[in-house]
Amino acid sequence: MKDSASTWVYGHSMPAELYLSDQVFRDDLDWLLPSQWFLTGHISQMPNVGDFFLYEIAGESVIVTRNKKGDVKAFHNACRHRGSRICLEHQGNKRLFTCPYHAWSYDLDGQLRAAASMPEGFDKGANGLLPINVRVFEGLIFVNFAAADEAPNFDAFTGRFGPLMRGQGLATAKVAARKTYPTEANWKLVVDNFFECYHCATAHPTYCQVHDKMKLLAFGAVDGTDPDDMADHRAWLAEWEAEAAAKGYPTGMFHDDAASAHFQAANRLPIAKGAVTESLDGQPIAPLMSALGTFDGGQTGCVFSPLSTVLINNDHAVIFLFIPVDTQMTRVETIWLVAPDAVEGKDYDPEALMQLWDTTLKEDKTITQNNQLGVASRGYRPGVLSNREAWIAAFGAWYVQQRGLA
Amino acid sequence: MKDSASTWVYGHSMPAELYLSDQVFRDDLDWLLPSQWFLTGHISQMPNVGDFFLYEIAGESVIVTRNKKGDVKAFHNACRHRGSRICLEHQGNKRLFTCPYHAWSYDLDGQLRAAASMPEGFDKGANGLLPINVRVFEGLIFVNFAAADEAPNFDAFTGRFGPLMRGQGLATAKVAARKTYPTEANWKLVVDNFFECYHCATAHPTYCQVHDKMKLLAFGAVDGTDPDDMADHRAWLAEWEAEAAAKGYPTGMFHDDAASAHFQAANRLPIAKGAVTESLDGQPIAPLMSALGTFDGGQTGCVFSPLSTVLINNDHAVIFLFIPVDTQMTRVETIWLVAPDAVEGKDYDPEALMQLWDTTLKEDKTITQNNQLGVASRGYRPGVLSNREAWIAAFGAWYVQQRGLA
Amino acid sequence: MKDSASTWVYGHSMPAELYLSDQVFRDDLDWLLPSQWFLTGHISQMPNVGDFFLYEIAGESVIVTRNKKGDVKAFHNACRHRGSRICLEHQGNKRLFTCPYHAWSYDLDGQLRAAASMPEGFDKGANGLLPINVRVFEGLIFVNFAAADEAPNFDAFTGRFGPLMRGQGLATAKVAARKTYPTEANWKLVVDNFFECYHCATAHPTYCQVHDKMKLLAFGAVDGTDPDDMADHRAWLAEWEAEAAAKGYPTGMFHDDAASAHFQAANRLPIAKGAVTESLDGQPIAPLMSALGTFDGGQTGCVFSPLSTVLINNDHAVIFLFIPVDTQMTRVETIWLVAPDAVEGKDYDPEALMQLWDTTLKEDKTITQNNQLGVASRGYRPGVLSNREAWIAAFGAWYVQQRGLA
Repeated sequence: MKDSASTWVYGHSMPAELYLSDQVFRDDLDWLLPSQWFLTGHISQMPNVGDFFLYEIAGESVIVTRNKKGDVKAFHNACRHRGSRICLEHQGNKRLFTCPYHAWSYDLDGQLRAAASMPEGFDKGANGLLPINVRVFEGLIFVNFAAADEAPNFDAFTGRFGPLMRGQGLATAKVAARKTYPTEANWKLVVDNFFECYHCATAHPTYCQVHDKMKLLAFGAVDGTDPDDMADHRAWLAEWEAEAAAKGYPTGMFHDDAASAHFQAANRLPIAKGAVTESLDGQPIAPLMSALGTFDGGQTGCVFSPLSTVLINNDHAVIFLFIPVDTQMTRVETIWLVAPDAVEGKDYDPEALMQLWDTTLKEDKTITQNNQLGVASRGYRPGVLSNREAWIAAFGAWYVQQRGLA
Repeated sequence: MKDSASTWVYGHSMPAELYLSDQVFRDDLDWLLPSQWFLTGHISQMPNVGDFFLYEIAGESVIVTRNKKGDVKAFHNACRHRGSRICLEHQGNKRLFTCPYHAWSYDLDGQLRAAASMPEGFDKGANGLLPINVRVFEGLIFVNFAAADEAPNFDAFTGRFGPLMRGQGLATAKVAARKTYPTEANWKLVVDNFFECYHCATAHPTYCQVHDKMKLLAFGAVDGTDPDDMADHRAWLAEWEAEAAAKGYPTGMFHDDAASAHFQAANRLPIAKGAVTESLDGQPIAPLMSALGTFDGGQTGCVFSPLSTVLINNDHAVIFLFIPVDTQMTRVETIWLVAPDAVEGKDYDPEALMQLWDTTLKEDKTITQNNQLGVASRGYRPGVLSNREAWIAAFGAWYVQQRGLA
Repeated sequence: MKDSASTWVYGHSMPAELYLSDQVFRDDLDWLLPSQWFLTGHISQMPNVGDFFLYEIAGESVIVTRNKKGDVKAFHNACRHRGSRICLEHQGNKRLFTCPYHAWSYDLDGQLRAAASMPEGFDKGANGLLPINVRVFEGLIFVNFAAADEAPNFDAFTGRFGPLMRGQGLATAKVAARKTYPTEANWKLVVDNFFECYHCATAHPTYCQVHDKMKLLAFGAVDGTDPDDMADHRAWLAEWEAEAAAKGYPTGMFHDDAASAHFQAANRLPIAKGAVTESLDGQPIAPLMSALGTFDGGQTGCVFSPLSTVLINNDHAVIFLFIPVDTQMTRVETIWLVAPDAVEGKDYDPEALMQLWDTTLKEDKTITQNNQLGVASRGYRPGVLSNREAWIAAFGAWYVQQRGLA
C-alpha cells in the first residue's frame, strides 16, 4: 500500500488494489468484523422462544436465536467438537441445536447439553457455542465479532438514531418480503454506489419518478455547490419540516466524518411533493405503520454503518444489508417491513411493496458490476469525484483512516 | 505452522489451517505421493494383455496396464514429446498408446516405438513413458510415485494383511459395480470421518440397522472406555471367533500408531447377530465369494493406508479410495466385487449390492462437507475428541509426525 | 526461474512452470502488452464515423472506433470518473460514448464532453479516455498498450509484409463470418500448436485432405531434414512460383529468429495441386477477392506476431487472434473475409466458408487442452522437438530472450 499507484487521494475514487486484492479483502474483514455492528434482521423474524435465523458473512455463519428468558442470543454456527456446521436450516424454531454430525446438543444459551462418550474431565461448561455479541435496537438485530468485553459501545452506536426514528413503528413492524441481489463487486464499490445519487438520473429512471428531483440533486452534495434554483427546494423542505413537526414527527439530520468509529448518517426528508410514501404513485402501499396516527410523507434514512442501512416510510420500511462475501462478491440483502397487523393479500401486495427497490437494486447490481470490471483494467485511474459524491469522498477518508492506510 | 493457532494438540481435531491452506495441500501431496502405496483398482479390471484403466489423483493421471508378459505396469499419462495426455479413455484395451497429438506411440512396457522426424541422435530408449511403481497384492493394484529405487517396501506394506485375508476370494473376485462421490472437503476430513463411528447413530440410520450396536460403539474406542455392558458383547465376539476359526476363517486384528510408515489397521469382526453379510437384512446379496466353503458372517476390514481401505464380506467386497483432488475437494471412489462366476441379474443385483454403502457414503458426503464449511469459520476451534474417536487422535499424531510438523 | 527444473533448453518444449504459473502469466502480459502490436479486427467492421467494436484481452477492454475525420482511434473502456466500463455493447455506432453509470460522455476522439456537477477547476481536457496506440495496415487494425511515444515502430512492424500481400484485396475485403474457440490452455501452448504441422496428420484429417502433403511435411521443418523425395515437391513449388509471378502475384518468404522484436514470418505457397483456394474441394467458395484478375492457387501466410496471423487466399482470407485470458485460458478468435461486393447466400455460404478452419480449430482446441492437462502433471518433462517443429524451438528462444529469461 506504499507506492504512489496505491495511495488514496481525497476527492478521488480508490486505487484499484483496494477493490481487487484478496489480501486487502482479508484485512478489511479482520478490521470490520470486530469493529462494526452488523445489522442482521428484524426482531419480528423471531418472536418466540427458540426461533432462529442464520446470518452469513464472508465464510462466517451465525445463529441468531431467542432463549427461554426471551433474550436474543447469537453464536458461531460451528460445533465445538470437530467444527461442523450445527444448524443447516436458514430459519426455524428449535429448543436444542443438535449437530448433525455427532449429535452434540446446545441449548438456546449455547450451553453444551449433550456430548456422548467424552473423556473424563471433559468440561461441558467450557465447550458451549462461541458467542457473538448481539444487541437489539428498535427491532433491529445487530451482531459484532469482537470479544465480549471489546464490543463497540452499543448505546453510542445507536444514540443519535432514536430521536429521528421515534414513533414510526419500526420496533413493532413485521417482515413482509425479502430478496437477495448477489453482486459481483467489492463491498466498497457497493457502498460507493449506495452513497451517491449522482448516478440516479442515468441509471434509475423509476426511482427518479418517485423522488423529488431537487432533493436527489442535493443528495450527497458538497456544501455550497447547490445550483441556484435550490432556494425554492429549501423553502419546500422547511415548510415540510414544519408540517411534519406539527403532526408529531421528528425532523433533522446528521452525518459523520472520517474520525467516526462507524461512519453513520441519518435524516428525515419528504419523498416528493404530493407523495405520502416511497411508492410508484406516492400513495400508500400498506396500512399506516407509524404510531403517530397520520402520514407526513417523510422518509427516515438511517445509515448505521456503510454496510447497514434502513429506510423508514410511514407505511413500510426497507432494510439494506451489504454483506461482503469475497473480494469480488457482495450479497445485497433487502427486507421489507410493514405494520404488524397488516394482512398480506388484503392490506398489502408484496410485489407492489418491493417494486421500486427491486427495480432500483437490479439496476445497481448491473452498474456496480460494470464498475468492478472497469477498475480491474489497466485503463483505470482513480478519478475526480463530483460535487454530488461528497459521501464517497468522506467514506474513502474514513476507510483509509480507520484501516490505518492514511 | 509455528504459531500456537496452528499447532496440533493430541486428542483434538486439527488446526483449521491444515484443512484450508493450499500450501499445506501441496505439501501433503509432496509427502503422500512418494511415501504411500495408493490402491487404484482390482486386477479383474484388466484380465487381458493391453487392458488398461486410468488412475487420477490431484492433477496426476496414471495409465495402469498389462504388458505382453502379463505383468501389470503403470506410467505417467504424459507424452515425452510435448507433454500431452496420451490416453483419453478411462479404460479399454490397446496394444500401443498413441498420443493423439503427434502420434508418438508407446508399447505396453512404456517403450517409445514410433516418433516421426526426430533429430539425429534422438534416443527412443531414453524417451519411454515415465514409469510409476506398481504392485499387486490379493488382486489389489497399488501405485507409488517415488523413484523406482525409493519405493516403500511392498512386502512390509502388505505383510500383515495376508493372514487376515486368507481364503476369502479377493484375488479372484471381479468388479460388479462402481460409484464416485465427489466431496467438497479436505482429504483429512474425509479420513477423519471414515476413522470413527461416533457419528453413525446420528448420521447413518441404515448402517446402524445392519451392524451390531455394541460393535459400533466399540469401533475406534479408546482402551478402557467401554461401557459396562460391553462384557456381553466381548463374550459374543469370542464365541464368534471360535466359530469362524472352526470354519477355517482367520481371526485377529492390529492397528498402527504414529511411528508407522503407512498407518495401517485390519480386523475380522462379525457383521451382527444372525447376519451372514453386510446387507440390509443380513442375508447374502451375491454367491459365496470365499473359498472356505461356508459363511462365517465376518467382515475383514483392511486399512492399507488412510486413503485406501477394503472391506471383505463372505459374498462381496468393497474397495474405498479417498483421492485428494485439491485443498477442498476429495474424490471418494467405491468399487464393489463379487465372486468371479457370479452372473449379474441372476446371481446378484448391482443396485442391491451397492445399497448400504451408497446410502452411507451419500450421508458421509453431506456431513463431511458441512464439517469443511465449519472449520473455515472464525468460530472453529480444534475440539476435544470423544473416547470413540481414538483413531482420529492417532491419525492426527501420525500425520504431524510423518509430515514433520510435530 | 533459476533452478534447473524451470530452465528452458533449446530444442525442447518449455518447463512446466512457464505454462502453469499465474505470476509468469502476469509477467507475460506486462511484457506483451506494451511490446507487441495486437491484431484486433478489420477495417470493414467500422466503415462509418462512429462505428466501433470492443477488443478484450486479459481483463483489458479496448474501444476501437472511427472519429469524425475518419481516423481510427482506440481507448481504454474505463470511465475516467470512477472506472466503470463505458461501452457495454460489443459493436455498434455512436457519436458519444456515454457512461451508463453517471453519464460522463466522451466523443469519438475520447475527449470528455459532459460531466455534470464537477468541482471548480476540474479539467475536462485532462480527463479524456486513455488512448491506446492504434494503426491500420492493409485493412488490419492493430493496437498496442505502450505509452504513445513508446509504441513499437509500426512501419518496421509491417514493412516486410506489404510486398507479399500486394494486390490480394485484403484492405478492401469485408467480414463475412466470425467464430470464437475458448481454449483452456496457456497462450504459449496455443502458439506452439499453431507453429507446427507435425500434428496435422494425426489430428487434422480434413486439413490434410485440402493441403499438399509434401508441403505440410515441410512446414516448420529444420533446414536439411527434408525427406529425399522432397525434390519433386521443390520442383513443383518453383514451377508454381513462376506461374504465380506470371499472373502478377508476389512470391517469397521470410521468418524471424530470437533477436526479432515481434517474431514475424510470411510466405506465399500453393494450396495443393489442382486447388485454387483453401476449400474442401480446392474450388472457389467466394468470388475472386484478389485485384490481380485471376486465381493463382496461392495462400499468403502472415504471422505478424505469435498472437496475430492472417491467411490470404485468392477468394477469402482468415484472421486468427490468439488472445490470452488467464494462465490457463486463451480465446482463439477467427474472422473470415471475402470480396467487398460478394453477397451472402448468393456469392458465398458462410458455413461453407468456415468449414475447413472450424473443423481444424475445434480439433486444435481439444489437442491443446490435453496438452495443458499433461504439462500440469508430475510426469511432464520438457521433451525433444522433432525436425518439423523448428518454429517452436525458435519461438521458445525468442520468448526467453525477449522476456529476459535466457
